Amino acid sequence: MTSGISSVCVYCGSSFGNDSKYSDQAKALGELLYKLKWRLVYGGGSTGLMGMIAQSAMGPGCDGKVLGIIPNALVAKERECCDDADVNAKLKESVDNHKGSTPISSKYGETCVVPDMHTRKRKMAEESDAFVAMPGGYGTLEEIMECITWSQLGIHGKPIVLFNIDGFYDRLLEFIGHSIKEGFISKKNGLIIEVATTPREVIDKIAHYTVPDGRFNLDWDDEGRNHG
Amino acid sequence: MTSGISSVCVYCGSSFGNDSKYSDQAKALGELLYKLKWRLVYGGGSTGLMGMIAQSAMGPGCDGKVLGIIPNALVAKERECCDDADVNAKLKESVDNHKGSTPISSKYGETCVVPDMHTRKRKMAEESDAFVAMPGGYGTLEEIMECITWSQLGIHGKPIVLFNIDGFYDRLLEFIGHSIKEGFISKKNGLIIEVATTPREVIDKIAHYTVPDGRFNLDWDDEGRNHG
Ligand SMILES: [Mg+2]
Repeated sequence: MTSGISSVCVYCGSSFGNDSKYSDQAKALGELLYKLKWRLVYGGGSTGLMGMIAQSAMGPGCDGKVLGIIPNALVAKERECCDDADVNAKLKESVDNHKGSTPISSKYGETCVVPDMHTRKRKMAEESDAFVAMPGGYGTLEEIMECITWSQLGIHGKPIVLFNIDGFYDRLLEFIGHSIKEGFISKKNGLIIEVATTPREVIDKIAHYTVPDGRFNLDWDDEGRNHG
Repeated sequence: MTSGISSVCVYCGSSFGNDSKYSDQAKALGELLYKLKWRLVYGGGSTGLMGMIAQSAMGPGCDGKVLGIIPNALVAKERECCDDADVNAKLKESVDNHKGSTPISSKYGETCVVPDMHTRKRKMAEESDAFVAMPGGYGTLEEIMECITWSQLGIHGKPIVLFNIDGFYDRLLEFIGHSIKEGFISKKNGLIIEVATTPREVIDKIAHYTVPDGRFNLDWDDEGRNHG
């Protein structure tokens, strides 16, 4: 396809939302990643859209590439619906015994347990060539905003795409437009975000992404790689 | 007033926006904090709304309480308009020599330089009894969303108020309303955010804040205090 993309981070809700269109699209995007042999990097949960896209990206034969990254404190909460007691025990174990990364379930791919949410975000970002936000709650919005902030600071120049299923993100995009109009976000930095309405378009926008130039020039080290 | 509030974190833009109403309100909120003898905790910049509210909260006699927390990598960028070469040199020095905290300028209060942006956010949160978001860009949105996420997880139950100057946050609030309607944010967690349109109302909403119950029960340690 293009430009060395082989691993895509998808931020999304740990709930399904109350319309099947959201899980249908999560499933469709997962299937497309599977077909492209791109790896899915995600928050490591088994519930809601997270669980749906992970299962789907693993493919019918469970031979897809999926890396779930979950903070220790959320293991019990977001790993609820599967073989939970067992999985949780193994996940906890993995922190101490397997450098936090262990293939835990063929259903959800490889899981990496990290000590805290900040490490989760950093690792999700570092393991990925592009970022997609599907519908979700406060956490999803925070994650994609952090990612945009890092791009704005020049820490990375990776594609960022909002998967705007049935207009879910319309009001947020209007808010960002208003922020540009009012002088709090530059027009150029408005271009950091691409918007797609189908899984195919998500992939196309990633493949043809152009990073706005003239941003700052910090790097991961400036952001405290060796400290945080 | 109430409930042990004496230190308020204000997230806001490092630019002024393109209408004086934003800096007028930043100034007014700073003045009110000064009168109440509440401490302002903020991002430590001297530019835009950040610089405005910091100067104003210091009061006419520069005897107010202000704590600015700035990551090392941003010192040069956000400390532009004052006695810069000098201030920057001192700030850099402070990381190594003064545990990162030193009174640097009577104009902007005490400044604390931290190694990275994550540490900035954590310290801003821990040093504050309440959180306010004024207009700003991606960074401001990310910061207040992280704060909301921490409240949702039960890591803190501190007041969170959007200072909605002239409808700046209307579209974001509509987006959050839509997320609730679509089942990605619970109605209860919609109540985490209070909205105010004047400085006085910001203070009132902080003073009379009720934290929604039944959230999760993580704490700062779960979130990696000892790791991150
Ligand atoms: Mg964040």
